[in-house]
Amino acid sequence: MARTLLTEDEIAELLAEFGEWRRDGDRLCRSYEFADFVDAFGFMAKVAVVSEKLFHHPEWSNVYNRVDIAITDHAAGGISNNDRAWIERVEQLTS
Amino acid sequence: MARTLLTEDEIAELLAEFGEWRRDGDRLCRSYEFADFVDAFGFMAKVAVVSEKLFHHPEWSNVYNRVDIAITDHAAGGISNNDRAWIERVEQLTS
Amino acid sequence: MARTLLTEDEIAELLAEFGEWRRDGDRLCRSYEFADFVDAFGFMAKVAVVSEKLFHHPEWSNVYNRVDIAITDHAAGGISNNDRAWIERVEQLTS
Amino acid sequence: MARTLLTEDEIAELLAEFGEWRRDGDRLCRSYEFADFVDAFGFMAKVAVVSEKLFHHPEWSNVYNRVDIAITDHAAGGISNNDRAWIERVEQLTS
Repeated sequence: MARTLLTEDEIAELLAEFGEWRRDGDRLCRSYEFADFVDAFGFMAKVAVVSEKLFHHPEWSNVYNRVDIAITDHAAGGISNNDRAWIERVEQLTS
Repeated sequence: MARTLLTEDEIAELLAEFGEWRRDGDRLCRSYEFADFVDAFGFMAKVAVVSEKLFHHPEWSNVYNRVDIAITDHAAGGISNNDRAWIERVEQLTS
Repeated sequence: MARTLLTEDEIAELLAEFGEWRRDGDRLCRSYEFADFVDAFGFMAKVAVVSEKLFHHPEWSNVYNRVDIAITDHAAGGISNNDRAWIERVEQLTS
Repeated sequence: MARTLLTEDEIAELLAEFGEWRRDGDRLCRSYEFADFVDAFGFMAKVAVVSEKLFHHPEWSNVYNRVDIAITDHAAGGISNNDRAWIERVEQLTS
């Protein structure tokens, strides 16, 4: 998919659609909390698989049942359509 | 946990409690079907983590969205309390 | 990638190149043995990620430190260039 | 395993033995770099499995081929024998 930076309006729309995500400068972020480490890692495994598939990889961290994820498009120099596609896919995992 | 073979009554009770599991000789078996490979692998990752924790490992196979699992206690020579504990833990994952 | 069945010569070439793989009818198979379950699962996690990326998924099973994998191209009705690409990628993981 | 804080001497010994680890206050840290995301995630899967087994979980983050790990024993209030056991196990994974 060609990289296209999202406009401010498109970013606002994305955040409206996915209310758990927030903006932090050039990154979009979400925190997840699971029942325990096993559930957290099951989610991480799914995120890993879809991230490699989209070849768009998050900056993410985990402590026990908590997973913090940030996504940005370094190559595009900001928040792009790749970030949107990635969030849409990852949100399917949590539903 | 000391290995104790389950009696026939205890095996029947276990199968009554976990209706998706069936007996195949000395093994207890269940088939899972997921939406796609990603969901199937997320489940497999959780099963892997809890299996190593209990140090009781299944015989399992995967094709796309399907996961087939069998559990038995080779060291005990049949279906044991370790199999029960493992099934109880794995069933929590799917709920 | 367009699906193209491999010719018998191309299959023979593939098996010559990757000596650990053998043919079983319409499937190509390899067995792996690792030090323990943890190493086996680490490998499975990598295979899962690359399989979804190529969107070509194996039939595979695991018991403790052993992983048995078969690959075939159901949609092509035999062994195809997709199987070759998948084996080439998976073989990089084990080196 | 009963939680016992390591003495300063024991921490120095641990860092001498595992030269890639460094101290950051109450945490022990190491950064890993892999060929790509797939290799990084394969390692993460192994770390996840052994961490749950030891029931001692790291604070860790990943960006593409890089994995940064910190370990501390919150319950013990510092660096403990649990951290030593965890590092010893994780170091086996990378060898």
